[in-house]
Amino acid sequence: MSDGFDQLLAFQRTTEALASIAGRLDWDRETVMPKGAAEQRSEEVAALETVLHERRTDPRIGEWLDVAADYAEDAEDERSLALIARDYTRASRVPARLATEIARVTSLAQGIWAEARAKDAPDDFLPTLSEVVMLKREQGAALADGGDVYDALLDDYEPETSATEIAAIFDAMRPRLVALREAILGAETVPRALSGTFPQEGQLRLARGVATAFGYDWTRGRLDLAVHPFSSGGWQDARVTTRVVETDPFNCVYSTIHEVGHASYELGIDPDYALTPLGRGVSMGVHESQSRIYENQLGRSRAFTGWLSGRMADAFDDFAGGDADAFYGTVNRVNPGYIRTEADEVHYNLHVMMRFDLERDLIAGRLSVEDLPEAWNARFLRDFGVAVDRPANGVLQDVHWSVGLFGYFPTYALGNVYAGCLDRAMRADLPDLDAELARGKAHPATEWLRERVQRHGALLPPRELIEAATGAAPSPEPLLDYLEDKFGDLYAL
Amino acid sequence: MSDGFDQLLAFQRTTEALASIAGRLDWDRETVMPKGAAEQRSEEVAALETVLHERRTDPRIGEWLDVAADYAEDAEDERSLALIARDYTRASRVPARLATEIARVTSLAQGIWAEARAKDAPDDFLPTLSEVVMLKREQGAALADGGDVYDALLDDYEPETSATEIAAIFDAMRPRLVALREAILGAETVPRALSGTFPQEGQLRLARGVATAFGYDWTRGRLDLAVHPFSSGGWQDARVTTRVVETDPFNCVYSTIHEVGHASYELGIDPDYALTPLGRGVSMGVHESQSRIYENQLGRSRAFTGWLSGRMADAFDDFAGGDADAFYGTVNRVNPGYIRTEADEVHYNLHVMMRFDLERDLIAGRLSVEDLPEAWNARFLRDFGVAVDRPANGVLQDVHWSVGLFGYFPTYALGNVYAGCLDRAMRADLPDLDAELARGKAHPATEWLRERVQRHGALLPPRELIEAATGAAPSPEPLLDYLEDKFGDLYAL
Repeated sequence: MSDGFDQLLAFQRTTEALASIAGRLDWDRETVMPKGAAEQRSEEVAALETVLHERRTDPRIGEWLDVAADYAEDAEDERSLALIARDYTRASRVPARLATEIARVTSLAQGIWAEARAKDAPDDFLPTLSEVVMLKREQGAALADGGDVYDALLDDYEPETSATEIAAIFDAMRPRLVALREAILGAETVPRALSGTFPQEGQLRLARGVATAFGYDWTRGRLDLAVHPFSSGGWQDARVTTRVVETDPFNCVYSTIHEVGHASYELGIDPDYALTPLGRGVSMGVHESQSRIYENQLGRSRAFTGWLSGRMADAFDDFAGGDADAFYGTVNRVNPGYIRTEADEVHYNLHVMMRFDLERDLIAGRLSVEDLPEAWNARFLRDFGVAVDRPANGVLQDVHWSVGLFGYFPTYALGNVYAGCLDRAMRADLPDLDAELARGKAHPATEWLRERVQRHGALLPPRELIEAATGAAPSPEPLLDYLEDKFGDLYAL
Repeated sequence: MSDGFDQLLAFQRTTEALASIAGRLDWDRETVMPKGAAEQRSEEVAALETVLHERRTDPRIGEWLDVAADYAEDAEDERSLALIARDYTRASRVPARLATEIARVTSLAQGIWAEARAKDAPDDFLPTLSEVVMLKREQGAALADGGDVYDALLDDYEPETSATEIAAIFDAMRPRLVALREAILGAETVPRALSGTFPQEGQLRLARGVATAFGYDWTRGRLDLAVHPFSSGGWQDARVTTRVVETDPFNCVYSTIHEVGHASYELGIDPDYALTPLGRGVSMGVHESQSRIYENQLGRSRAFTGWLSGRMADAFDDFAGGDADAFYGTVNRVNPGYIRTEADEVHYNLHVMMRFDLERDLIAGRLSVEDLPEAWNARFLRDFGVAVDRPANGVLQDVHWSVGLFGYFPTYALGNVYAGCLDRAMRADLPDLDAELARGKAHPATEWLRERVQRHGALLPPRELIEAATGAAPSPEPLLDYLEDKFGDLYAL
């Protein structure tokens, strides 16, 4: 090995450890930080970001890279160098002035968005959104260096994947999802909703129980409450959070399973990759595939909900979930609605796909921010069959665009597509999985996913990883087949 | 203001924020970190320390300091520059090789010490301690730059104070403490000890109650459990920890009050000083004065324990603390013993003072590590009137020397001396304080201390600060008078 190679990896290791600290500070802020500490925390985070930015754009990285390539000994070395080179190039392409301006505008924009949503007043937010879109276009153009601007933004969340490839997948999904949605809404059989009150203590005990069922490693994690559930960290310390709504225990249970999916991915990565460019989930789409397969294909399966209904009966007095079949229907009840985050498995991807198309148009300049509310409403009516009742339930509902997250939305649906592919392959490999799930044992699935997906970290590009894991190129067919089968049964279609 | 002045303060602000993050990581490790994350955390801490060391020895600090002095506008500016210059000089004097070697040896030494203590085998530890002493002598000599080596080490914990000054105070204290100790142990009246079991939940409720009584700001703090209680942070986020021993509720209550004292100091500092060199407690001695006056002169007073006995009766079924006078005696019961951390107000300083003398001799080379056990035992017999029964109760009991903390011990007793001075002045200013304490209201004391001591942060050197707060140069008289009065009454001497 050359000095350049060793120095580069040592430098990178320190940078990765510092980035990991930034994650700890976020966890702390959302779970345990005293409420009066916001200003101090933002100074701490800014200080760390200053150091991280200096390191990520340190010109020595370029010098080390020039000599290091000759000393890569295997595919892991080569991939590490390629990822370092990509991050360095991207970090160096965005002028400091622009990065600072984006940070400034988006931190203000989030507050303006929240207020506009509360007041149901899109005009209060749209001028600010225009500013954000302009800045993100500028950033995308700098990053793209002549390539596609949206793809350059997408690369932060779903690297090595083009919007064209994603659009091809989504366009193939839409007709079947719309048709399924219409069939369900016209069905005569409708599972009943759950009613009652479910105390926090019982919900949290249940949440710990389901996390354990999925094999969550408590020696390397913990569960806390947060307003918006998230997972955080990796390697030896990947924590999850959940929330409790006393009238809706499924919120707590499925938030927990979802976040345990994310955390398990990070905990499943080969520990030899820790603090290297390989030691993290390769993309948001693959990350979401892990959280979604845990939550939906496994956690909302007939087998697992059968076990869960027993645990809920243990946890809550007078639990009236009905028999296991009825309970399965209740868990999977389809609720048409305006809000993405409350959507069921059938509606969710339709939400995401319309945001993807709209944000591509915004970044490309085919759609102006001024015309966005009208475009939103028209598209919603077309895909969902109902008109948006008010902006807070429409164009104002998501925080993402206000904070500059363009290119993030498609990873949600891509994750579902990947989850569908993985579920099909896993079921073929593990014929007894349902019998295990019915006994509350989801860890054989975790083990399969660890072996096929998780342990590789960022070694393979996302679509190659899914293809290597499943033996087939990613396609929406398995997800659509799964949804049509599942909801066809449930709604007697 | 000059560019150099502004650049220096901005650079310092980022460094202070990064140092604050290091404190967060320590808090996290001791309270909420999953137990499998030790290796990762040590990489994170090492990465942050690397960055902090680079910043603290950045040669630009010297350049900025050269031009900044002309632009200081007031005493605060001047003090800030002096503190930055001191830290820069000290950081630059220790060769990187030596700093790394000390970090390496002490991190191993702590484990070797713990094992030797568990096995009661001093010979397993002494060779390692010799190494630590050699390295600390070398570090002290580098820092002293021709001055006194021990003073140079002391400066990390009690700046602007010499060992000679401390020795003069301690030497004046010893005879009166020894005499008091002998009188108490010969007394016929002996307060009874508390017996019973006190469940964790009640102890923690009580701990929250006493923290509130002292005016602890819960919007800028929180209380958690830790094996060794500590406080952490400042400005907008100063957290405390406590521990629960089910047979000894005083452990939890007085650990909490002690740590609330430390946290209140940091929270009481003028917020304009945040993230500047003025924005922290000026020395460990002054810090300990705050924790000790909260714990002892206030928390163990007849007035406050009267209120506390009522709260304990509320918190625990069948609480048998006796009447308020008997309870006061129980809280302040004198227990001769070998262990510093379990010592009462009378014995505590005797413990500290012997360590101070021994460590000065070790650093000066007047005492070899080989001869330390014998010196320890001889001194203990002289000051405490009993022979040490085994090394784990003697020379092996404290972690400090193994991790290289030479110069730290005297700050414990100095803090008690300062607490005595402050208590005398505060009682003169607040004649109704006992009436307030008897109603569980200790916050008038917090307010007095905030005004006289806490808000100044590091603006004044430690002894000047105490003199400005009390109107008299620090002296052990008030502490000794307080102890003789209090224990004279309790033991009917």
